[in-house]
Amino acid sequence: MNILIIGGGGFIGQKLARRLAEIGQLRGRQIAHMTLADVAMPAPVDAPFAVDTIETDITDPVRVDALIGEGTDVIFHLAAVVSAHAEAEFDDGMAVNLDGVRHVLDRCRSLPTTPVFVFTSSLAIFGGDVPDPIEDWTIPNPQTSYGTQKAIGELLVNDYSRRGFVDGRGFRLPTIAVRPGKPNRAASSFMSSIIREPLHGESAICPVDPDFRHYYLSPKRCVENLIRGANAEAAALGRNRCMSMPGQSLTIRQMIDAMTAVAGPEPATRIKWQEQPDIAEIVKGWRFDYRPQRALALGLEADDGFEENVRFYMQEDMPKD
Amino acid sequence: MNILIIGGGGFIGQKLARRLAEIGQLRGRQIAHMTLADVAMPAPVDAPFAVDTIETDITDPVRVDALIGEGTDVIFHLAAVVSAHAEAEFDDGMAVNLDGVRHVLDRCRSLPTTPVFVFTSSLAIFGGDVPDPIEDWTIPNPQTSYGTQKAIGELLVNDYSRRGFVDGRGFRLPTIAVRPGKPNRAASSFMSSIIREPLHGESAICPVDPDFRHYYLSPKRCVENLIRGANAEAAALGRNRCMSMPGQSLTIRQMIDAMTAVAGPEPATRIKWQEQPDIAEIVKGWRFDYRPQRALALGLEADDGFEENVRFYMQEDMPKD
Repeated sequence: MNILIIGGGGFIGQKLARRLAEIGQLRGRQIAHMTLADVAMPAPVDAPFAVDTIETDITDPVRVDALIGEGTDVIFHLAAVVSAHAEAEFDDGMAVNLDGVRHVLDRCRSLPTTPVFVFTSSLAIFGGDVPDPIEDWTIPNPQTSYGTQKAIGELLVNDYSRRGFVDGRGFRLPTIAVRPGKPNRAASSFMSSIIREPLHGESAICPVDPDFRHYYLSPKRCVENLIRGANAEAAALGRNRCMSMPGQSLTIRQMIDAMTAVAGPEPATRIKWQEQPDIAEIVKGWRFDYRPQRALALGLEADDGFEENVRFYMQEDMPKD
Repeated sequence: MNILIIGGGGFIGQKLARRLAEIGQLRGRQIAHMTLADVAMPAPVDAPFAVDTIETDITDPVRVDALIGEGTDVIFHLAAVVSAHAEAEFDDGMAVNLDGVRHVLDRCRSLPTTPVFVFTSSLAIFGGDVPDPIEDWTIPNPQTSYGTQKAIGELLVNDYSRRGFVDGRGFRLPTIAVRPGKPNRAASSFMSSIIREPLHGESAICPVDPDFRHYYLSPKRCVENLIRGANAEAAALGRNRCMSMPGQSLTIRQMIDAMTAVAGPEPATRIKWQEQPDIAEIVKGWRFDYRPQRALALGLEADDGFEENVRFYMQEDMPKD
């Protein structure tokens, strides 16, 4: 079993690689080899099998052809130009999120083998005038270029799978919280910051009111779900290989209460409530009422209350003093 | 008002061009010039304004750039590698139906102007395990490469419109009947043949039983709907520029009864009932229960009974003796 993680340097990619190193097998076979590929050289990961790290660029089909061969059994495609970047730089988003995916799929198509292709899509494919709840058969109606490119990726994964070029499956990620690392310029950044920074003894700004509701999944569950998705048999996926990954709909208040339940009352006092209308404007358009029945039937899971997310962060991702 | 019809040599393109020549205006402005472009040189069309015909190839971005300029006000994009062709020749379908559309959209993006872009999609974007009826917010789940490419085209039209690169709108065509011309190898070919050939005094084979139900629109109404779609103001389209064009759900028996009502009992006697399991297998997977509420609200219309379709064919398309 040879695995390739495209986007293997990112935080989900690294966590997935470490988890695969722990379990040592995928789709019922021992992992013999894993390649982590990314635009910047990925950090190495300790494993009981060989792990290569490669700096590459999926916008270049020649480099994609070199990356994937007949021996490649499972590809996790996590690489993406993210939402704000794809909105600011249209060509970058199209090059990576559309053409890059197509280069990978076309390389698979050129092989005599049929690699399993695990695609990370996003709940950002939904939006606009479409009524809630968002169900399995709701139209993708993205209101960002990132969401558009992910929705196109899903269509390609489905058609390339139907034609037998890959054995694809795609999962639309909820907002991942608690993310490790630093705040960034994403509008969703505060959704991790308001937990992460207070747990570190630092202050954080919450730009929306405590009743703001959104849809979350922990990084740990996300990785487990991707592995379950990779393990699924094609027949279980039916005639649409892509589906929403389960998450939890939570208010900011519920998230903070969970932090307090896990870590005591102190962290919550470090949150500064500071309305930021520009951020509130963006995030209030986001959906939170999802009914991911197909993924649940496949065995994918949401977290069991946000206390889990807080605990997972403290156990797995919080920098040790 | 300068109009470009890409796919202007096809039968819908020609009919659209002739209709625009009759009405002489679009979007409230007099038509000054029309270009008909296609892979084979389009037939000329008489009009009270200048009409150019151009042989071109939208898979070549250089030729697309030459085709579209600042003066191009409205583009009708009818060109496509059709269903059976795109299924047999994957690369051809991707080159024309995906890359070709993108070349046109990217050329528009490069202009200081914002052309109106009328995209013909197809009800073939729907299918698979998705339950009936097919409503405005039903997920596209194509089971052909043609349907996949059309669904991708819709996503691009929406995103390029949202970003202000074009003022796009897309309409998913029902099966067009009665089509003029000769039978072809499309699985749907018989749906026109069983009316057209008997009206000509020739025999035709019906490969399905009289209760087979499908969703139809006449060429004449299709053209009227495309013109109404072009005339629509962007604000009326909301945050999804693409929608299903209304049609009628009819059984074969209803179609034949309509022919008899219009043309007497003789033509129906020329239909040979000859079950063809390979064709029946394909067409029985097609949907017929559509609820195109958005298009109806925009003023697009289905035919008023299949007798209209028969009459339209006899008036507009039947070769005169």
